[in-house]
Amino acid sequence: MDTKVAPFARLIEQFERLPGIGHKSAQRLAFHVLSMTNQQAENFAKIIVDAHEKIHKCEVCCDLTDSDLCCVCSSPSRDRSKICVVEDSRDVMAIERTHEYDGLYHVLHGAISPMNNIDINDITVNKLIPRLDPDKVKEVIMATSTTVEGEATAMYISRLIKPLGIKITRLAYGVPVGANLEYADEYTLVKAMEGRKEL
Amino acid sequence: MDTKVAPFARLIEQFERLPGIGHKSAQRLAFHVLSMTNQQAENFAKIIVDAHEKIHKCEVCCDLTDSDLCCVCSSPSRDRSKICVVEDSRDVMAIERTHEYDGLYHVLHGAISPMNNIDINDITVNKLIPRLDPDKVKEVIMATSTTVEGEATAMYISRLIKPLGIKITRLAYGVPVGANLEYADEYTLVKAMEGRKEL
Repeated sequence: MDTKVAPFARLIEQFERLPGIGHKSAQRLAFHVLSMTNQQAENFAKIIVDAHEKIHKCEVCCDLTDSDLCCVCSSPSRDRSKICVVEDSRDVMAIERTHEYDGLYHVLHGAISPMNNIDINDITVNKLIPRLDPDKVKEVIMATSTTVEGEATAMYISRLIKPLGIKITRLAYGVPVGANLEYADEYTLVKAMEGRKEL
Repeated sequence: MDTKVAPFARLIEQFERLPGIGHKSAQRLAFHVLSMTNQQAENFAKIIVDAHEKIHKCEVCCDLTDSDLCCVCSSPSRDRSKICVVEDSRDVMAIERTHEYDGLYHVLHGAISPMNNIDINDITVNKLIPRLDPDKVKEVIMATSTTVEGEATAMYISRLIKPLGIKITRLAYGVPVGANLEYADEYTLVKAMEGRKEL
């Protein structure tokens, strides 16, 4: 900022700190805030503080919630014999959008990554293990991402769970629906080939 | 949002209302806000309200400022014989970044656009005319954008000013620096050809 309007410069800087927002976008967002009514701007501010204050981890699955239990854990209609283990709340949202999964979740809030100094104690595995009563839980679906870290995390957790005798599954690898084979990388193609099914 | 965490859904919605932010980006921004410390989130909220409360139009040039006069109008080092007329504060910032212009500005906050019901009374022309004392102002640079609306606005204002006998100029049209001719449109090329200079 060259013209030194301090509150405005601070607003731009604040937006610039958000992920994926460069200087030009931050400027555009800041101008948008100025074009709001006072009421709207105060509301925006309140929503930020509110969300921050009220949202915390679900006591059971560690997903984000504003109550003690998240809406999945507290729902009577979910199948309690399946737990889908994901890296973060965004993954829960993505799976919920499919409207196909009716089990529970466990949100790890990360993946093991020695490179970034994230080890098993930094993710919520210690909250997952006590949930795994073999009389109630029949399947744990490892739905961590298919990155090196996600794979390592899935392997590590599945080794912890194995002794309990619960079935452990991993999401299928393959070519994304609607994708052109040309753009699929070799590893994905190898996995898709290996996992091929009879028609 | 499928999982019904209301304060979080509201935060996502709020971000989604910002220009150029789609649902996925809004989600990412909302998660970023949650990852802030309480202090940071409150600060973010405060900056929004602050900017909104404190910023208003400069009494003289209508640029945005948090004092009576903006930093350009109040600077003793600016050349008061030149006024550069722009559509909005972003344009002031863009020109200031060049560090080449030392005159004053006038911010119209829009351009005449019959299509959008914006006429001459919706922009700050009525604040521009009283500034044009021919003893003091020697040049008015029309730096509105080169869209149909910007051109119409420049023409309209220049006709209003003409009787005062002040020199009126328009930014040069031409091929942007660093651009490949191949990608320039015909109108730009015609203008660039017309405005060619001897080397």
